[in-house]
Amino acid sequence: MNCTETEVAEKIIAMEKAALERWCKGDPSGFLEMSAEDVVYFDPFMEKRLDGLDKLKKLYESLRGQVDAGWFEMLNPKVHVGENMAVLTFNFNSKVNDIESKWNCTEVYRKETDGQWKIIQTHWSLTKV
Amino acid sequence: MNCTETEVAEKIIAMEKAALERWCKGDPSGFLEMSAEDVVYFDPFMEKRLDGLDKLKKLYESLRGQVDAGWFEMLNPKVHVGENMAVLTFNFNSKVNDIESKWNCTEVYRKETDGQWKIIQTHWSLTKV
Repeated sequence: MNCTETEVAEKIIAMEKAALERWCKGDPSGFLEMSAEDVVYFDPFMEKRLDGLDKLKKLYESLRGQVDAGWFEMLNPKVHVGENMAVLTFNFNSKVNDIESKWNCTEVYRKETDGQWKIIQTHWSLTKV
Repeated sequence: MNCTETEVAEKIIAMEKAALERWCKGDPSGFLEMSAEDVVYFDPFMEKRLDGLDKLKKLYESLRGQVDAGWFEMLNPKVHVGENMAVLTFNFNSKVNDIESKWNCTEVYRKETDGQWKIIQTHWSLTKV
């Protein structure tokens, strides 16, 4: 990984961590602000892929104020950096009301024409329990 | 999506379908042949991300001949095409011994310096049941 790629990787991880901090306090706006119009999304509570920012907004707004994770950790984040896309993968552990959850996560970021990195794909799933 | 992007999207979907055809008959070689050395992988049976082609080979070889899906379908495939990466997302249903499974899948492909597209990230998870 060259210097530019390392900078991109660090930037992406920092963006994700900042959005997760807000998410874990019940605020989905961090993720919404950095998701693209054509974002696609998977989580284990839905029957199929969700397409587009409008639908993601409805889902996230329905969860606003509902999440209160007193503890969480991003494990072993890794970024594959491409020319205008970057793939962040990590494991994620969190505790809500003393119940621990363990997750797999893949985020794909795209560099938009204005230079900003936006999420175009989010995939959350539960690991083996 | 311009003509080139449409061609890339069609190519990626065709590659994935061909590999799935082989996978569903117990042959993991299709996926192994098109996975990059630095591939990362998630599935719901593991505790965390698996890193690298060597480990993926061990996993896939342990499953060789074990999968026999008489029926399967790729639902609603979508490709986000970037300059040297492409993100394929789809839902996938399969039946093994009359038991139906429903999956979410994200595959990230990268165009290598020799022009070939290789998988650098695979994420399989079970949908809401």
